[in-house]
Amino acid sequence: MTRSAAIGIDYGTESCRAVVVDLASGSELGEAVHLYRSGVIDEVLPATGQALPPSWALQDPADYVEGLTAVVRGAVAASGLTADEVVGIGIDTTACTVIPTTADGVPLATTPHWRAEPHAYAKLWKHHAAQRHADRVNALARTHGGLFLNSYGGKISAEWLVPKALEIFEAAPDVFAAADRLIELEDWLVSQLVGHEVRGAHVAGYKANYRAEDAGYPSEQFLEELSPGFAAVLGKLGHDLVGPGARAGGLTEEWAQRLGLRPGTAVASGNMDAHVAMLACGVAGPGDMVLVMGTSVCNLVLSAEKQHVEGMSGVVKDGIIPGYWAYEAGQPGVGDTFGWYVRNFLPQRYAEAAEAAGVSGFDYLADRAAALRPGESGLVALDWFNGNRSVLVDAHLSGVLVGMTLATRPEHVYRALVEAAAFGQRTILEAFESSGVAVDRIVACGGLPGKSPLLMQVLADATGREIHLSASANTPALGAALHAGLAAGSAAGGYDSFAEAAAFGRISETAYTPDPEAGAVYDRLYRIYDRLSTDLGRRPEDVMYALRDIAADAARYQQFPLQEVGP
Amino acid sequence: MTRSAAIGIDYGTESCRAVVVDLASGSELGEAVHLYRSGVIDEVLPATGQALPPSWALQDPADYVEGLTAVVRGAVAASGLTADEVVGIGIDTTACTVIPTTADGVPLATTPHWRAEPHAYAKLWKHHAAQRHADRVNALARTHGGLFLNSYGGKISAEWLVPKALEIFEAAPDVFAAADRLIELEDWLVSQLVGHEVRGAHVAGYKANYRAEDAGYPSEQFLEELSPGFAAVLGKLGHDLVGPGARAGGLTEEWAQRLGLRPGTAVASGNMDAHVAMLACGVAGPGDMVLVMGTSVCNLVLSAEKQHVEGMSGVVKDGIIPGYWAYEAGQPGVGDTFGWYVRNFLPQRYAEAAEAAGVSGFDYLADRAAALRPGESGLVALDWFNGNRSVLVDAHLSGVLVGMTLATRPEHVYRALVEAAAFGQRTILEAFESSGVAVDRIVACGGLPGKSPLLMQVLADATGREIHLSASANTPALGAALHAGLAAGSAAGGYDSFAEAAAFGRISETAYTPDPEAGAVYDRLYRIYDRLSTDLGRRPEDVMYALRDIAADAARYQQFPLQEVGP
Repeated sequence: MTRSAAIGIDYGTESCRAVVVDLASGSELGEAVHLYRSGVIDEVLPATGQALPPSWALQDPADYVEGLTAVVRGAVAASGLTADEVVGIGIDTTACTVIPTTADGVPLATTPHWRAEPHAYAKLWKHHAAQRHADRVNALARTHGGLFLNSYGGKISAEWLVPKALEIFEAAPDVFAAADRLIELEDWLVSQLVGHEVRGAHVAGYKANYRAEDAGYPSEQFLEELSPGFAAVLGKLGHDLVGPGARAGGLTEEWAQRLGLRPGTAVASGNMDAHVAMLACGVAGPGDMVLVMGTSVCNLVLSAEKQHVEGMSGVVKDGIIPGYWAYEAGQPGVGDTFGWYVRNFLPQRYAEAAEAAGVSGFDYLADRAAALRPGESGLVALDWFNGNRSVLVDAHLSGVLVGMTLATRPEHVYRALVEAAAFGQRTILEAFESSGVAVDRIVACGGLPGKSPLLMQVLADATGREIHLSASANTPALGAALHAGLAAGSAAGGYDSFAEAAAFGRISETAYTPDPEAGAVYDRLYRIYDRLSTDLGRRPEDVMYALRDIAADAARYQQFPLQEVGP
Repeated sequence: MTRSAAIGIDYGTESCRAVVVDLASGSELGEAVHLYRSGVIDEVLPATGQALPPSWALQDPADYVEGLTAVVRGAVAASGLTADEVVGIGIDTTACTVIPTTADGVPLATTPHWRAEPHAYAKLWKHHAAQRHADRVNALARTHGGLFLNSYGGKISAEWLVPKALEIFEAAPDVFAAADRLIELEDWLVSQLVGHEVRGAHVAGYKANYRAEDAGYPSEQFLEELSPGFAAVLGKLGHDLVGPGARAGGLTEEWAQRLGLRPGTAVASGNMDAHVAMLACGVAGPGDMVLVMGTSVCNLVLSAEKQHVEGMSGVVKDGIIPGYWAYEAGQPGVGDTFGWYVRNFLPQRYAEAAEAAGVSGFDYLADRAAALRPGESGLVALDWFNGNRSVLVDAHLSGVLVGMTLATRPEHVYRALVEAAAFGQRTILEAFESSGVAVDRIVACGGLPGKSPLLMQVLADATGREIHLSASANTPALGAALHAGLAAGSAAGGYDSFAEAAAFGRISETAYTPDPEAGAVYDRLYRIYDRLSTDLGRRPEDVMYALRDIAADAARYQQFPLQEVGP
């Protein structure tokens, strides 16, 4: 029997993954994962050995292409399907990753001329070196009454396109001049597959300050005032934009051959990992908050109305599901922070005890932390180890740990980090509710819920809410495949509406339920968290910014950075 | 040729040490060290396996006696001297360690009846469980205009005698009733050696709120108001007191036999480790600040005048050197904090790299931290991991670390801890100077300067002062021996004045000198430290006290505490 299937390809921070989905049942038939050859380039540029300054995070675009072929071939092989049965391809990525390319879409970093130039590489979402540029965008927009900022919680962050482009324009004008296109990763991948540039209005809407309902991108006048000559960036962006789930085009002959698929196979417009996850969780309307939880956490809520909610990364009309305003908020370092802590601070005796018990150091520590009672650690942390996105939108903020004594043990600190992540979520939830955007149900997806049941329970306890889970282990990839089904359309075995596609998203039958006794303790701890957040985050000059400035000055004189120890 | 030598015995937190000193030259002829069998009892009472609450720190008095015989015999043997050549014995200890004993001086904890009762044990200086009792002493004294508090920086801490005695009185009234004597460790040891109770006025002056120039101990009326019946404590203390360097008596026949010394050998009055160190550093007058640096740091300054300096642990007339007011200040957790950090947070890959390099994990980490530039870590810490003694005098305060990012590495945190210790010292130095007590020279002694050259350099840089070092590796023991020389007197080959004895103390020829460029960075970091200290330490209710209360409530419900991992 012939099936109609779609491939969803999800580009994460360290790896990409493809899933083949049966469009008639939503079931996943095969999958494959590929780790990027150069991973995240944040210490040394492999091509030259050049040390990178703090806050940098690059990737090699060649890795994306290598991964694309590997996972598509791998997943189709695993599914046992033939090329004829694959009717659509959908791609989602982390965002916003910006790639400078030639007019033909060739990434500058893959050419010999630019191989040694860090600014020519893909600037990964967590490349935070453009924070000062983001600050200038924010400051200038405010002098004009806010302008586009009003759609983005009043601030944009270093992670977005305009600051990253401005950083290239000013720090590497030759790269800027040579880059005919500055294009986001998901758009670039889709453009490669269909043989011409196609960009998503929703992608530009979230990360390039494009407002379809208003003036489009920030104005030429604004960009010139920001930095004379910078309006040239408008010529490097996309202007003929398509919406989510739209058919960007058909697979080229060349790519069909590389991937082992049929030429002309429908390719959906590129999208963001978090946004395609919503459909995969069965959500296509207001009242649900979807948490996409991994290295970072992305919060998504739909609403028929546009409200001002503090610290949104974006409020975009038709941004995820046509017909609704889509609100995006988030935390930039959650799973990342847990991994960082275990890698850098798990003592040898714990590592040895974990090995003896046959579990990972992460799980060993998490088990010990889970055995603690709420509040027992005597600690409270601020979850700003990778800056703060919502609600303060400030990449200059950094992590805080208060309450350590000589009786503090590794599991106490770990639990405090988990609790801080939950308190950060509570702050976001309260921002939605106090602004009149309803959140009746919370659904979590991504890799972190399965890895950290402790986080999920603390999240339920600290928010007093049930936390439901996506039923798929590959939620974004499933979501990308459902978007591919929309691009293919019902005639090809796909879908004609988002509601129809959402019926194939699914959540699990069980949920994390809040414990009121733990909740009472967390109410007390949250007051401390909130107090510290206010003192250090809303008046950041004397402590947080001063520390940043001192470290930046020290880095300026630092000629021989220490090398990382060990594997 | 016959020599005149004295034995100085120094009781530290984990071990005791004896040094035999030639009184005519000050040279050290032999030494011995003994680790207490039960160490610090802070998790489980060995006699019963009973878990101890947080903040407890006990010791077994039997360990002190076992150690006394071992180190005296060991050091005399190492010196090659005969018993006839030993003319004096001096003892110093950490303070204040309180032992409940019978009328005959038998520690209750060494009797079968009380062996299972934690309150019957020696409460070590860092037993902080009596903080609430200290708070009540402070609060009550304040309602009466301060009373004795005015000699102790306006507050006393949980480490002192009165709070510890009050804790026993209320939590274990049977122990309090059975304890005919409540005696501090140094006084108890001396009393054992001479066969009758002899206590030091200087010991009582610092740790039991005894003011020779005023009303003596806190009044009966005050103690009754504190807790009805508690005035009975006065009958358990000493009232016939002797000064520093005084002859407490002669060695008993029994002890002479146990120690292999002559009966009648002069025994000096008991003293505190930090205070005898002053003489060993050659200091017997105003203008010098002696830092005794180990698990904790003690600051000592002499002055002809009595001034109000914030956060002094004590300002005692004739407290160290007769004729001067002696100011004591300090930091309760310095070497302790470094050890805690390395033990609990040094990751396996660092431990393995240290092993491969043939150095300790501590030294490996310190070397990496030393290679960082001032300010490079982007971190600032508050050094309150064991509470704060000077200048805030608050054991409820706890450690803080601000500025962590995903780029933070173990050496960054370690360096921040070292810098915080130096900033704590700067706070103390500024308190002295702003109160008109001169500090012209700083001399450091104790175990920490040799273990952490990084701390010494940062201390010089952060204070802008030269830091001189004691030339002896056994400074307190040398000081105790010089006090023994005073007790023996010149007729027996000893000394008749402190100035004469101080001539045999000595400092090294080299000093740590401040680097102005580093100092400029530390000025900036210190402003942040000072800001956080003020916010969190001078208005501690909303954060620090709230965390303490939450943890205390959680501990109340905690039935099965986690066991420590590993060796």
